[in-house]
Amino acid sequence: MKLAMDAMGGDHAPDEIVKGALQAVKMDEDLSILLVGDEKRIKPLTENHPRLEILHTDEKIESTDQPTKAVRKKKRASMVLAINEVKEGRAQAIISAGNTGALMTAGLFGVGRIKGIDRPALAPTLPTIHQGKGFLLLDAGSNMDAKPEQLLQYAIMGSIYVEKVLGLKQPKVALLNVGEEEGKGNDLSKQAYDLMGNAPIHFIGNVESRDLLEGVADVVVADGFSGNLVLKNIEGVGMSLMSLIKKEMTRSLYAKLLGLLVYPKLKGIRKLMDYSSYGGACLFGLAAPIIKAHGSSNSTAIVSAIDQAKIFVKQDIVQTIQKTVLEMNDKETK
Amino acid sequence: MKLAMDAMGGDHAPDEIVKGALQAVKMDEDLSILLVGDEKRIKPLTENHPRLEILHTDEKIESTDQPTKAVRKKKRASMVLAINEVKEGRAQAIISAGNTGALMTAGLFGVGRIKGIDRPALAPTLPTIHQGKGFLLLDAGSNMDAKPEQLLQYAIMGSIYVEKVLGLKQPKVALLNVGEEEGKGNDLSKQAYDLMGNAPIHFIGNVESRDLLEGVADVVVADGFSGNLVLKNIEGVGMSLMSLIKKEMTRSLYAKLLGLLVYPKLKGIRKLMDYSSYGGACLFGLAAPIIKAHGSSNSTAIVSAIDQAKIFVKQDIVQTIQKTVLEMNDKETK
Repeated sequence: MKLAMDAMGGDHAPDEIVKGALQAVKMDEDLSILLVGDEKRIKPLTENHPRLEILHTDEKIESTDQPTKAVRKKKRASMVLAINEVKEGRAQAIISAGNTGALMTAGLFGVGRIKGIDRPALAPTLPTIHQGKGFLLLDAGSNMDAKPEQLLQYAIMGSIYVEKVLGLKQPKVALLNVGEEEGKGNDLSKQAYDLMGNAPIHFIGNVESRDLLEGVADVVVADGFSGNLVLKNIEGVGMSLMSLIKKEMTRSLYAKLLGLLVYPKLKGIRKLMDYSSYGGACLFGLAAPIIKAHGSSNSTAIVSAIDQAKIFVKQDIVQTIQKTVLEMNDKETK
Repeated sequence: MKLAMDAMGGDHAPDEIVKGALQAVKMDEDLSILLVGDEKRIKPLTENHPRLEILHTDEKIESTDQPTKAVRKKKRASMVLAINEVKEGRAQAIISAGNTGALMTAGLFGVGRIKGIDRPALAPTLPTIHQGKGFLLLDAGSNMDAKPEQLLQYAIMGSIYVEKVLGLKQPKVALLNVGEEEGKGNDLSKQAYDLMGNAPIHFIGNVESRDLLEGVADVVVADGFSGNLVLKNIEGVGMSLMSLIKKEMTRSLYAKLLGLLVYPKLKGIRKLMDYSSYGGACLFGLAAPIIKAHGSSNSTAIVSAIDQAKIFVKQDIVQTIQKTVLEMNDKETK
């Protein structure tokens, strides 16, 4: 299997990206990786490994770039060229820790959508507190004004992914809503509820935002606006709370000493709340596997994003999604 | 001043409601309170205070009742009769710790809307971690499919309330959105952004859900669906995190001992996260002051909801909102 990596995207690029790629090829002799980016910076990090190739380019998209403009202007950006390798059939999946919006745009321009899917969705895995297995949230911010049919498509894509990649039989799929009962919510969620109830998924109904971290569902479906609000809110409340605890633990010498003893315990929690550790986010609905690793990824996070991409390819998720959606549409037409 | 209280609404009704009312009239000799509910249960709790009257009724709305149906059928429910007292001019404000949806519905049927306001909004005050001053969130779940003009109305109502009741000059009003930059968001938020930028408020632009607890704004405007998602998410993440910390602190005897020392510190945080302590939520846009105390209110929370209602009346918030909205509409027509 051959993967294309944007070696220049992310806060610690190219060092941690290449380091992660090197670890991954060492662990899997069937894997080769094409690193796209500045050869002068990449080469010294590869240990001349035979299954690490380099495609040189000087151009890259910054995290602050306006996505559509950047993809249109920077035709030789590392991210764009990596996607092109998959488009041309020379690689099977793309991994980037760069600008999320640009990756989505470049993916749409480059490989296009899966037939039967209207809009791609961004799907990170978020933490849960009890078993720590996490849940897939989609859409987390790709498509701001979603339609009910699109939420249904997210549900199907999420369910297939969790079943095939995470190996969970009959994953529980829920709709993010303001109440658990049927009939709750806005026009969009009411209509999506009806559609999801008739879909070939294990739909468990609505989930409230207060229960998300308790792990009540494996796949949580939302429009991109709501999904993004909740994603950033979980992150923000977690961080605000941790900083508040830290503040409380410095109010006196006694508190400070107590703090020193307690922090090691809290570190585990901070890590749990840091959703970057749950692998990359998938860009579902594009006609090739595209994994968005977190911007702050270190080599370990990159290795786990590579693993994700490998299963994505091996399980042929893109084909499975296309087949399921087309079959469903056929049934509706009949 | 005379207030009407639904003495039968809330988890600890009528005991804590009447206890709170008694404290409030003892502290303010210009205040009298009409307690609506079961006389047999209320009377023994009033100490025969001369400024505590009772309006007897056997009927009440349960927290589990379907709002519209309950308000229509239970015409002599304590909540409905309390609102009727204000409608008939015998009291100036209503306080209830009962069913939020029913209170909103009964308010709409009973006193109606402020002229110029399309839809009422539910507006709780949420905590912030630094100064603990909190921020007003509206709409937190009353109107699920809001229009841009309605978000503008929320912004104006919230700004007036925070300025007049909390005494904050030029309160910072922000729009809940998925990014800070102008042009971010869904159709609704983009249009609302433009309207709010031209309104007679101190509009500071978009706020992201991750920054809410940091206290970047005094008033945060959202459609009822998004507002409710964020409200319940803040509550849920806070609670999940606290229970996780508790779990971590029981893993070993050492952790347990450490836990005993640390809990007193964490209690303050749990209290901060418990938004019920931030007084009642206002039902903005109704033609009389209606305060929704938290369902779990004890007498202290009831006293603070009464204080809120008093300032609401004294500052003539309803008239100020109506005047501001009509002036603004006049300007637009010219």
